[in-house]
Amino acid sequence: MFEKVLIANRGEIALRVARACRELGIRTVAVHSTVDDDSAVVRFADETVRIGPPAGRHSYQNAAAIVEAARLTGAQAIHPGYGFLSEDADFAEICADNGLVFIGPRPEVMAALGDKASARRLMRDAGLPLLPGSVEPLASVEEGKAVADEIGYPVIIKAAAGGGGRGMSVVRSGADFAEAYVRSRAVGRAVFGDDRVYVERYLAQARHVEVQVLCDGHGNGVHLGTRDCSVQRRYQKLVEEGPAPSLSAATLESMSTVAVRGALSAGYSGAGTFEFLVDEAERFYFMEINCRIQVEHPVTEMITGVDLVHEQLHVASGVPLRISQDDVQLRGVAVECRVNAEDPGRDFVPTPGRLERFNPPGGPFIRVDTHGYPGYVIGPYYDSLLAKVVVWAPERDLALDRMERALDEFDIAGPGVRTTIPFVRRVLDDARFRKGQYSTGLVDRLLHGSGTPEQRSGS
Amino acid sequence: MFEKVLIANRGEIALRVARACRELGIRTVAVHSTVDDDSAVVRFADETVRIGPPAGRHSYQNAAAIVEAARLTGAQAIHPGYGFLSEDADFAEICADNGLVFIGPRPEVMAALGDKASARRLMRDAGLPLLPGSVEPLASVEEGKAVADEIGYPVIIKAAAGGGGRGMSVVRSGADFAEAYVRSRAVGRAVFGDDRVYVERYLAQARHVEVQVLCDGHGNGVHLGTRDCSVQRRYQKLVEEGPAPSLSAATLESMSTVAVRGALSAGYSGAGTFEFLVDEAERFYFMEINCRIQVEHPVTEMITGVDLVHEQLHVASGVPLRISQDDVQLRGVAVECRVNAEDPGRDFVPTPGRLERFNPPGGPFIRVDTHGYPGYVIGPYYDSLLAKVVVWAPERDLALDRMERALDEFDIAGPGVRTTIPFVRRVLDDARFRKGQYSTGLVDRLLHGSGTPEQRSGS
Repeated sequence: MFEKVLIANRGEIALRVARACRELGIRTVAVHSTVDDDSAVVRFADETVRIGPPAGRHSYQNAAAIVEAARLTGAQAIHPGYGFLSEDADFAEICADNGLVFIGPRPEVMAALGDKASARRLMRDAGLPLLPGSVEPLASVEEGKAVADEIGYPVIIKAAAGGGGRGMSVVRSGADFAEAYVRSRAVGRAVFGDDRVYVERYLAQARHVEVQVLCDGHGNGVHLGTRDCSVQRRYQKLVEEGPAPSLSAATLESMSTVAVRGALSAGYSGAGTFEFLVDEAERFYFMEINCRIQVEHPVTEMITGVDLVHEQLHVASGVPLRISQDDVQLRGVAVECRVNAEDPGRDFVPTPGRLERFNPPGGPFIRVDTHGYPGYVIGPYYDSLLAKVVVWAPERDLALDRMERALDEFDIAGPGVRTTIPFVRRVLDDARFRKGQYSTGLVDRLLHGSGTPEQRSGS
Repeated sequence: MFEKVLIANRGEIALRVARACRELGIRTVAVHSTVDDDSAVVRFADETVRIGPPAGRHSYQNAAAIVEAARLTGAQAIHPGYGFLSEDADFAEICADNGLVFIGPRPEVMAALGDKASARRLMRDAGLPLLPGSVEPLASVEEGKAVADEIGYPVIIKAAAGGGGRGMSVVRSGADFAEAYVRSRAVGRAVFGDDRVYVERYLAQARHVEVQVLCDGHGNGVHLGTRDCSVQRRYQKLVEEGPAPSLSAATLESMSTVAVRGALSAGYSGAGTFEFLVDEAERFYFMEINCRIQVEHPVTEMITGVDLVHEQLHVASGVPLRISQDDVQLRGVAVECRVNAEDPGRDFVPTPGRLERFNPPGGPFIRVDTHGYPGYVIGPYYDSLLAKVVVWAPERDLALDRMERALDEFDIAGPGVRTTIPFVRRVLDDARFRKGQYSTGLVDRLLHGSGTPEQRSGS
């Protein structure tokens, strides 16, 4: 096992990774920006290196500074968390070139799977079901229109390099195709430096269901069950749960099995997530692969008892997977609610500020992952995720009751600080959510009445 | 199910019970003493009644005031937690006389099992193994001496009404018997108003292992596995874990099975704990029954996924037990460390004071039950338990590593406040503890070098 690991991230996930390292006897290096001098992971880690000013490109996405920090401290591996450099194949390559283990799949695997068009092709070849559409990037607007006409409207145009919903355009009739095509390409070029796009059928009322996989790169892979992540606002997940409710065991099993097959066929190693859309007839379609630990991974940990970050570290250190599929026993139901420092009453605008009170819920079957503490100052520079509240129960109804108890107990106060707790409480109160009968249209319905349900695929 | 429950306790267990009620949709009434106006459960509960000054007899053991508070608020049932009135058969009777459900076994069952001599006789008749000794209280010093001579020394004399180690005397030779007999009777009379004593073989190097049972009073009962509670100082447990380590599966199963048999034969209802001493040859001997929820119940909850307080409430409401023995699946290992506001460097003297910082550990597979919060003032009036840190892992070694991580992360500070964390860290570091090869002599060995190992049976 590694003796020292550098954590190239911040917030709750950096602390979560540092905790895992501590438990495995691995020393930790926290790199941080100048505004994170007093962050929880900086307090927790064995060593810290201040690498630059707040902007991501100067700090948490500053590959050169991070590699140099690893060299200075003698770290052998880098855990990228999620976001920032976690899905950057170039960074993984730079790590390898500098004799550092990047904790994630091999760079070429990340590159192949990070490109949505390439991932689609690979997974189609591995036998995963895709939504009807173009597999290769579109060569022209005419080609795209022809594919769309064949599929039937509505369709969705997606940037091949896209993520977080950017570069996606829903097209409801052939007359709108050309304009949407141009728009998606422009966003792709501007945001991702890549204007390739593809088109596929657009599913309204779909569910977003994902499968957690774990592979060792030596031909061994397991799945750790499913999570439903349909509760999204603008492609940002708000509530996640597992196992995905109201789907048959056969569907869940089938989806999980093909995910492992896809991962193994791609030579995947580490923890990864296969995202699917599921329609009302329980047909499921491969959407994309997230080559990293997910924000919502605790849901899976509470159900399986497997510490995914431990397993990432073990696999990255070169040992074969320590668990077989038979070892993975799913027990009960887990639900995660994200507590963002945002004002749901003002269109979810971030609310930076100082936490005068911060007292997370505790007690039975509750897990809180947070970098917050009393006195912590939420800055304006990074995403607004402040805490994840995760609960477990033998059955879903009790898990939801428990979540309500936990959220009601969460005491957060500071001048100007608001959180998404009141909004996720509304989700939990929603009758259709309670029944497990919800889709990606849920949040729009809560925010705008019956509104247009929209297909979502956030991260 | 009840609509409203009164919680006749304070501290972490009162909050824990209130959380359970909230999850089940039951309204809560917190009764509290004048020094607990700002306690966590008072903040959490739906209604509160201040019942008297700090001294237990005026507040948390003031049966009349508690029953009156229940009447005033319309509570239908009373949860006594542990300590205070929780094993007071007279109080259970008073509740019944006032039309209130006491959440625990029936008064006559509590009376029969609360008396150690009577419990010994009942359990012997139910086929549970007892340490050699007198079953009936001793009629005279001569009778006691004759029994002791027959058993062989060392023996231990125990007050029949005793608890927490009070009224126990170890006798190492016949010459010392009479003096010890007189001493135990005197303590019994002074502390418990009952001078009956009995004598049994004294086991050095024993382990204290207990079995959690759950019965419904309708003839159904299950066990929920074992806990080792050998890490005790002066009969106060410091570290508990489950399943009991280094004992064969056959021993654990056998102990668990006879505990259920004993509980059913006594007409037990609710959650209860059967305490056993286990010798080096894995022979086990019934010691006593605790007719209440235990401090260390979270260990069992993390292993089984069963919420014991929920089940107490269900059973007390009259429904048959909702789980069968087959439903109880033990998974992994859980460990609990008690964080007391005491100074281990000054003979564990309590350290009251204001918590200026109080930031409990979080993250994966950690549970913290505490009534502490930043700004909370620990008073001098009650026991010094401030928090319970409980961890789970698939295997014991990882559970202990995780516990070390969690304890190291616990940030508690305030003028004069000390905690037992440094001492329990020493326990976790101990080589024999690490191997699971420890007995009730462990704490003495850590505190006083190799010292005399002593039999312990705390609560």
